[in-house]
Parts: sequence; structure tokens; C-alpha cells
Amino acid sequence: MGQVAWKGLFLSLFDYKTEKYVIAKSKKVGILYRVVQLSILAYLVGWVFIVKKGYQDTDTSLQSSVITKLKGVAFTNTSELGERLWDVADYVIPPQGENVFFVMTNLIVTPNQRQATCPESDRIPDALCYKDGDCMAGEAVVAGNGVKTGRCLKDRDNIRGTCEILAWCPVEKRSKPKYSPISAAVVVYDVQAKRETRWISLFPTCRMNVLATNNESYLKSCRYSTEHPYCPIFLLGSIVQWAGSDFQEMASEGGVIGIQIEWNCDLDKAASECNPHYSFSRLDNKFAEKPISSGYNFRFAKYYRDAEGIDYRTLIKAYGIRFDVMVNGKAGKFNIIPTIINIGSGLALMGAGAFFCDLVLLYLIKKSNFYRGKKYEEVKSSSRKSLSSPTLNGNQSPDQVGGL
Amino acid sequence: MGQVAWKGLFLSLFDYKTEKYVIAKSKKVGILYRVVQLSILAYLVGWVFIVKKGYQDTDTSLQSSVITKLKGVAFTNTSELGERLWDVADYVIPPQGENVFFVMTNLIVTPNQRQATCPESDRIPDALCYKDGDCMAGEAVVAGNGVKTGRCLKDRDNIRGTCEILAWCPVEKRSKPKYSPISAAVVVYDVQAKRETRWISLFPTCRMNVLATNNESYLKSCRYSTEHPYCPIFLLGSIVQWAGSDFQEMASEGGVIGIQIEWNCDLDKAASECNPHYSFSRLDNKFAEKPISSGYNFRFAKYYRDAEGIDYRTLIKAYGIRFDVMVNGKAGKFNIIPTIINIGSGLALMGAGAFFCDLVLLYLIKKSNFYRGKKYEEVKSSSRKSLSSPTLNGNQSPDQVGGL
Amino acid sequence: MGQVAWKGLFLSLFDYKTEKYVIAKSKKVGILYRVVQLSILAYLVGWVFIVKKGYQDTDTSLQSSVITKLKGVAFTNTSELGERLWDVADYVIPPQGENVFFVMTNLIVTPNQRQATCPESDRIPDALCYKDGDCMAGEAVVAGNGVKTGRCLKDRDNIRGTCEILAWCPVEKRSKPKYSPISAAVVVYDVQAKRETRWISLFPTCRMNVLATNNESYLKSCRYSTEHPYCPIFLLGSIVQWAGSDFQEMASEGGVIGIQIEWNCDLDKAASECNPHYSFSRLDNKFAEKPISSGYNFRFAKYYRDAEGIDYRTLIKAYGIRFDVMVNGKAGKFNIIPTIINIGSGLALMGAGAFFCDLVLLYLIKKSNFYRGKKYEEVKSSSRKSLSSPTLNGNQSPDQVGGL
Repeated sequence: MGQVAWKGLFLSLFDYKTEKYVIAKSKKVGILYRVVQLSILAYLVGWVFIVKKGYQDTDTSLQSSVITKLKGVAFTNTSELGERLWDVADYVIPPQGENVFFVMTNLIVTPNQRQATCPESDRIPDALCYKDGDCMAGEAVVAGNGVKTGRCLKDRDNIRGTCEILAWCPVEKRSKPKYSPISAAVVVYDVQAKRETRWISLFPTCRMNVLATNNESYLKSCRYSTEHPYCPIFLLGSIVQWAGSDFQEMASEGGVIGIQIEWNCDLDKAASECNPHYSFSRLDNKFAEKPISSGYNFRFAKYYRDAEGIDYRTLIKAYGIRFDVMVNGKAGKFNIIPTIINIGSGLALMGAGAFFCDLVLLYLIKKSNFYRGKKYEEVKSSSRKSLSSPTLNGNQSPDQVGGL
Repeated sequence: MGQVAWKGLFLSLFDYKTEKYVIAKSKKVGILYRVVQLSILAYLVGWVFIVKKGYQDTDTSLQSSVITKLKGVAFTNTSELGERLWDVADYVIPPQGENVFFVMTNLIVTPNQRQATCPESDRIPDALCYKDGDCMAGEAVVAGNGVKTGRCLKDRDNIRGTCEILAWCPVEKRSKPKYSPISAAVVVYDVQAKRETRWISLFPTCRMNVLATNNESYLKSCRYSTEHPYCPIFLLGSIVQWAGSDFQEMASEGGVIGIQIEWNCDLDKAASECNPHYSFSRLDNKFAEKPISSGYNFRFAKYYRDAEGIDYRTLIKAYGIRFDVMVNGKAGKFNIIPTIINIGSGLALMGAGAFFCDLVLLYLIKKSNFYRGKKYEEVKSSSRKSLSSPTLNGNQSPDQVGGL
Repeated sequence: MGQVAWKGLFLSLFDYKTEKYVIAKSKKVGILYRVVQLSILAYLVGWVFIVKKGYQDTDTSLQSSVITKLKGVAFTNTSELGERLWDVADYVIPPQGENVFFVMTNLIVTPNQRQATCPESDRIPDALCYKDGDCMAGEAVVAGNGVKTGRCLKDRDNIRGTCEILAWCPVEKRSKPKYSPISAAVVVYDVQAKRETRWISLFPTCRMNVLATNNESYLKSCRYSTEHPYCPIFLLGSIVQWAGSDFQEMASEGGVIGIQIEWNCDLDKAASECNPHYSFSRLDNKFAEKPISSGYNFRFAKYYRDAEGIDYRTLIKAYGIRFDVMVNGKAGKFNIIPTIINIGSGLALMGAGAFFCDLVLLYLIKKSNFYRGKKYEEVKSSSRKSLSSPTLNGNQSPDQVGGL
């Protein structure tokens, strides 16, 4: 018996086995099934493949190196500094033009600071005192500029004074900067954001955001705008405006602006169609409502040494606009695996659809009972008693069963 | 015949065809199949959908812009510098508060260096000499500070000396820095890591790591801790401690600490549930065992010009802690395509399960032989001789076959 | 009737239902189907699983922190500066050794600039003038160094002059720098690119590009090369050469070079097999053909203050090589979900293959007509008139149909 089974198994290897189907002449279910099939097909072709490009393998890991360069000068006339001209070496920090750069548009200058003792600013609560005992020697002033010496300095006929501190003296005046003169001229700055982006994994040939042109004068004279989407030269003022901010307010308070470059490349098309899309957004606006640091500023110092070899410095609290160039990309390329997976899942859905229609056919329509009998053929060996009810008997005549 | 075939094909378009099933009253296999089905269902629903959120499309490309700000002062009293107070403009490099910032906690100062000739440090093997011939003029000292002039300088009654070099003189003393006084005060620094992260592709609305509160005093006074997970203000000392390092050792030797911010967002839930998770780790600890640069340090110089217009500089070898704020994120959003794919693959598995149970039914159980006959209905046209053995004959009565 | 149906439904729960198959003894189709099956299997096992590692979940989000350090000195002898020795504090900008660093190899020095009035460079078209009227007072010179004062300065017996400007005077000579002496020595620099990369999501244990060795002398003396792929020390000259550029040209004009580190890790294998692959490429070469900034350079200034407390500065236009260390990685780990998805899609394809073979069997081969009759069993209830043609009648004997 077993041997015959193996023989049968082997023979059957090169037979073609195909499911036996029952044709149910129920137009209702038939049309229902066609509808299911068509909708699945529409989803697969229309949505998955045409809209979502499901046949592509996408890569979002983008390596980019950003080169930025600023041009332009600004003229200011302030009480502390007098007439002064600012060029890139003065207002661009850091100078080397990476993807994050800062343009100083306003500043508080505290010149000639020396290591000495002086009264702490009276704007700092922790420095207020009535007697020397309030200033514990050696204790740092919380959120202050130095370390207390232990003395409480008062102007005559004042009860309240401020602690004396060891610090860079005189301390910075905590006055909010008035409207900045630099920003008046800042609109003439250009950000020559010359970007170089490369795909590592999918995109060997390097792509640029600079229009591939040999027209020198165009690249020298153009300014980025909706009309010139591939011109790499931006006006600072326009960027701030595109980010939806007011330039004057940003220039005096400082802020952070993100320049987002999106590459959305379909590598199945020509590389020339893979172009950048820019978007500008203010990154620090959320903070505006928050106590901690509305705007953007930081302190740095220029160090000098006088004839006696004593160090002194000019402390600069720089307000300005920080620009973060953020390159983001997605590249899609045809790949057999996601294609197969999407097709496969679609086919599997068809099976689910058939199962659903079966339920309708076998349990919901009028003659479901009859079809159930046809679909399911109950078999039992003579060795056991039949459990099947006549209606379930299917298309078996007794002699067939007995025939075994 | 062909015409009839096409007619049949057309008619059948709106018939519903359903597989004909054989009901094998074998409870063994039946239960086995149910078990298989249930386990697949459990895997699909429990693991894929509930645990792994297989219905979501996830995006890991996160654009982030980090703003950091430090506060605090430190007081030192060293032989080279005397009493000195350090504020942010002194110890934060670079000053502009990006995602990578360095806090100087220890330093070797070499003041008043001028371009001149002087003996190379005797700690450098390549500079040791016995006669002038050992110092080839114009040759740079390997891992040294200058270019050899060709002379070998010896203290009197010494056989061995060091080459004279053209360099910034005097050269830096290669002495390991003693315990740093700055770090004594460094624990009062705050890193006000005010971060701004944005999803480009999936997450238009910007998310912050700052608790959305209007409580000013909270954000001014809070410190990040397990109790205050959304407070953006960190104590330097705590960060180092959380990174599992000893602050004193790091402060004197320097090191790199990574502040990792993880966003793991389920965009199907409310945005307010999308919160950052911080983790702190030391990034340079591997190097501790390695010869090349345990710790972290770099050299920079402050340039001065004396009355005669001659340049001189103060060389500073800065030891300190570099902090790398690394933002990493994952956002998941419901998407029909992965959902279908996962369901589809599950259904396909069911088919595999059925195939497996068929094998059991047809070849492994006692009456497999009988079921095989039932499942496979052998058909042959009268035109060819039957190959089928009686046992494989299935449920066909001769007249049926002959009837064609 | 319905009740019987439900009874049948319940009973059938623990029956095993298996599709009834028709064995078509058509070796043609049988072999065709086997071929289809085998090719799908080959694709699934060979391509998807073995080649493409379809059983793995891959993660491309890599967090990396890069530490770089340069060593070496250079000696120059120029007219402006005389004999001068350059060390890391002089030519590395910024000094703190992050993933982007710049090595100054050439420079234009403009010493002793003061805020004053002087003629604009005559290389700037906008500054050329014939009479004072050509220089509108207060107007900034386009692409120039200052703001016009309104006067037109001419050498005697010249018709054409240049506008007087308020600026840092004297202005920089726009002369292209001659071949740079620094680069002559630059080949002795080492870039000690000591990198620390970490996987956040998939790779908890940190990985390094430094060979895990305790051999001090090796790591001190080695240089990266194809023979020493895990030595973290690079010669600047070699990097430029590997990037396919000429060092002398780059050193004098400047440029940007990308050092790409690729981690392609199979986390199912030992971590020790997860090693970095380096590639070097020039990132700014595209610009070479473009008008805007061939090469790479930027301006910065050193600020001094004289005895009278007047600021003056030395402007430096620095040409040099910027290095961008870009870490990119992919980690794959076995994951049940993609495995199931790929298997599932393969199985679904099998179904498609069967469907295709059915078409052949039922409509393309000689006896298709006969097989169609066998595969499709037409059933109709006595209540409606049979539409079926005899050939489509299938294997039903009248008494069966009448029997219901």
C-alpha cells in the first residue's frame, strides 16, 4: 500500500494538479466577486504602483556637505562704536561657511573689561544686599557675572546695594538692545549657499542645486525666487520673509531660521529631473512664547593685551540670525523585491475576497444550502458510520462509497 | 469547439467559481489545521499589529536643529594665571551654541610665544641629539613643534642635548596638567539645551523637548532629572554622572559625552504623547585603553601684537568635555500599504499551513490513502490509456469516464 | 433548514476541509508548472534571502560622533610675513576637531587694516568713476569692501579713478595667491581621524574604526592604506590623492574633500566582522567649471588694539582644504516580520503561477476543452433551467442532480 502511495506520489510529480471548481450560477455573488477583484486591482495598480510608486525601493539616508558664503557690508553709527563699517570678517561667525552660520545683526559691546572687582549688575536678584553679610565671600552669583568678595557696595544714602564681585569688570549692562543699525543694511547681504549633496547608497553620481549652466553672468546676477528656483544665491531679507518673520524684529532680537532643501528623486527618470525644493521656516518661534531665551544670542570676547602685558577684553553679546541649512532627501529606484511583495500581498487579498464571497454564497443567499452541498464533498470511509445529513451528502452515489 | 470554449469563457465571467472542497472527517488533521490557523492569527494580530505596529509606516529621517546655551562662572587660582574668573565667553568653545559644544575645564597655558629659535622639548625622541649632525637643518621634528635649524643645544657637561628649532618659542611644556581648578566650579554650569526638532516628511507640526507650560518660574528653576523629564536645563555634573563617568577625572583629562535624544512618536496618537527620551553616554571611553589620545583636548592660540608690531601669542592646550547632542527619531503613522502587506503575508502563510496539513492528511495518517483518492480526482480522456492504479482511481464510476 | 445549516457549520469546524484537485495528466502543463515553481523558489531563496538578506530588518539611521586631530608643522618664507612657522594652532580652523575641519594651505594677508577712507580696489566695476557724481555717498559698493563717501579719487593725469570708500583700509588686494608655501610642508600633517560611531536603534554596543589592538607602537606609527585598512591615521597628501585631485592645485586654490566612512554591518554575524569602509571624494570639483567660487576659501580677521586704544586688524583670506567626515551606515538583523512577508509574497506568486498554468491548461492546449469540463463542475438547482452545454456538463450524472 505505502509503496503504491510512493509510486503515486512520484507519478503525480509531473502531473498537473489544479483545484476543482464549482461553478455557482449565482450572478449576485459572481458580480460581487468581480467588484471585489476590480477594487483590489484598482488599489494595487492605481494607489500602490502609480501613486505610491510601490515598485521602488526608497533610500532616505542622504549625505550632504554644505558650503555657504556671505557677501556684503553694513555701515553703523552708534554711541559706543561711532562710525563703523562691518564686512563678512566682522559679522559672520564662524567664518568658515559650513551648513550652520550666524549673521550678527545687533550687539551689546562692553569694552575694556579687566579682571578686577566691581559691583554686580543690580538687575540680578541674587546680588542685592543690605549689609556685607548678604554677600558670602567666594560664592558665585547665581545667573551672575562673578564671585562675591564679601562686601556690599552702596551708593551714599541708599539702604540697598549690590554685592561686590570679582569678575571681568565693568560687567555687561543688561539693557535690551535698541533697534540694531546693522540690520538696516543687512538686506544687501547675499547668502551664496552653494550646496553639494550626494547620495551615498543609491545615487553615485553627485547632484547639485546649482543649475547646470555655463552662463556666468546668470549665476553671478541671479537671486533665488520662485522664478529662479535653481539660483543658489539668496537675499537674507527674502529668506526671513519667506520664513514668515519680520526682519526688523529678528535682526534686533535674533532668531534661528532653517533652510530646508528637499531632494525627492525618482532615479528611474533622468537625473536632470531630480531637483531640490527649498523651504524656509523659523525654528525658534516656539520659544517666543517661552520665558527661556526668546530670540537667539551668545557672548564672545576679543582679547587684547596692554603695554604692561595685562589682558583685557571686549565682551560682545551678539544678537543675530542663525541659519541652519538642512538637506533632506528621498531617492526611489525600481527594485524587484518590493514589487513582488506588493503584488503578492494583492494576490493574497484576492484570496481573502474569495473567502468573503464564499461566506455570502454559502450562508447568506437563498440557495446557500444547496451550494454548500456542492462545494463541500463529504467523504467517509466504510469503516466508520456516516455523520452526514442527506442535505450535506453532496454528489456521491452509494455505490461509489461502497466501491472502495 | 473553440467557439463553445469562448462562449463558456464569456458566460463564466459572471458565474461565481469557488473551489470544491473535500471534507475529511479526520478530527486529528482538522484540529491541527485550526491550531495552525490560530497561531498564525495570533502572530499577525498580537505580534505584527499590536506589538510591532505593523499597520504603520515609519520614518526615521529626522531633521533637527539644536540650540544650546551655557551659564555659570568659575574661579581659579593658578601659578601661571594668578586669580582668574572664567565666564562663558572664556570657557565655551565655539561660543555660538550649536549641537556640539566644548566646555574647557583644564588648560596648559604657554604665554608670550614668539617666532624664534629655541631648544625643542626633550620629551620628543626625534629631537634628541649628540652633535649638530643629528639635527638636519630644515627638517621638521616628527610630532614636534618646529623645524630644526641644524644646531644641537646642550647644557654644559651634558653629552646629550636637544635640537634647536625654529618655532613659536618657548615651546609648550608637555607636562600632564595637574587637577584642574576650573572643574571645581564647573558643577554650577547649566547646559540650557534648548532643542528644536522637526520631522520633515511625516511630522509637519514642530515638536519641542520643552514642556509646553506657561509657568515661567518652573522653566527658570527646574533641572532635568527623572522627576523632571521635560525640563531642558541640565547640570554639567549630572550629565557626566549619568554617562557613568567620574567628573573630576573627565574635567582634568577631557572627554566626549553624547547626549542622545530619542523621539519615538506614534503619530496616530495625540502629538502631546510624542515626548523625547534622553540618554547620556561617554563616547571616548573606548580610547581610554588606547594609546592615541585618551581624553579630549585641542590647542588654540590668542594672538597679540606688541608696540613694535611684532606678533606674539598665548598658546592654550585646552582640556575639557565636548558634548554632542544627537537627535534621533522614529515616527510611525497608519498607512494602508504596510497593513495590506502584513495581512497578505499572513493569509499566504495560511495557505502554507493548509499545504502542510494536506501532507499530513495525504501521507502520514492511517487512512491517508483513502483521502488521497478523494482529494485528487484523476481524469483522462478516452484517447489515452489510463495510467491510474485502482487505489488512485478516486470517486469516478466507469460510466462517467466512458460517458465522454 | 437554517438550523441544519448551523449544525453543519459547527460540525465542519473540526473537520478538515481540503481543496479537491483534478489531476490533469498533461505532462506539458505539469512540467511548465514545476518550472514556474522552481524559478519562484530560486528567486526567493537565492536572490531575496541569500543575496539581498531579505530575512533581515535593516536600519540606516546611524548616530556618529567624529573626533579629529591634526599634527605637524609647516615652514614658510613669504614677502609679507617673512620666515614663519605654522603649527596646528595656526592652520587648523576651527581648532576643536569636529567632523568638519579646515586646513589652511594658502592665504592672502592684509595687515594693519583700520576703519578709514581709502580708494576701493580698481578691480571692482561698481567702484570705477570719472567724477564725484559717479560715487553716490552712503551707497555700498556692489561686491565691494565699503560704503562710498561721494568722492572720486584719481591719480594725476588719469581720466578714470575709483570711488573713495569708508572701509577697513587698505582694502585687500584681489590678487590670486601665488603657489602656497604652506602646502609644501603639508604632506607631513597627519589627520588623526579618531572616530567613534554608534548605532542608536539596532546596535547598542559601540563600534570603532580603530583596530582593537593593544599594540601601542602600531597605532602610533601606522598610516592608513589598503594594507592598513583599520589604521585611523591619514596623511593629508594621500587623502587628496585618493580623492583623485592634485595636491598642489588644491593647496593653492582650496577645495572640499569628503571622507566617507561606510559601515555595512550584518548583526547576525560577530560584531568583529562589522568594519568600516573608507572612500574619499572631492566635493567641490563640480564648481571648478562654474563661475561661482572654484576652490574653497573664506575671510577672517585677527583684531588688535594699539596704544591709543584704536582697533585695527589683520585680514586673512584663507585658502585651504576642508574635510568633511561623513559617517554612513546600514545594519541588518534577523527579524521575523520581513522574513514572513517575503515568504508570503513568494507563496502568493506560486498562486499566480498556478493561475497562469490553468490558463494554459484550460484554453491553450489541445484537450483544454476536456479539462475545462473536469475542472469546472457546473451545478444548478432544479428550480432553474440549465444553461450548461453538454461539454461543460462536468462529471455529474443526471440522477445526482435529480436526486436533490
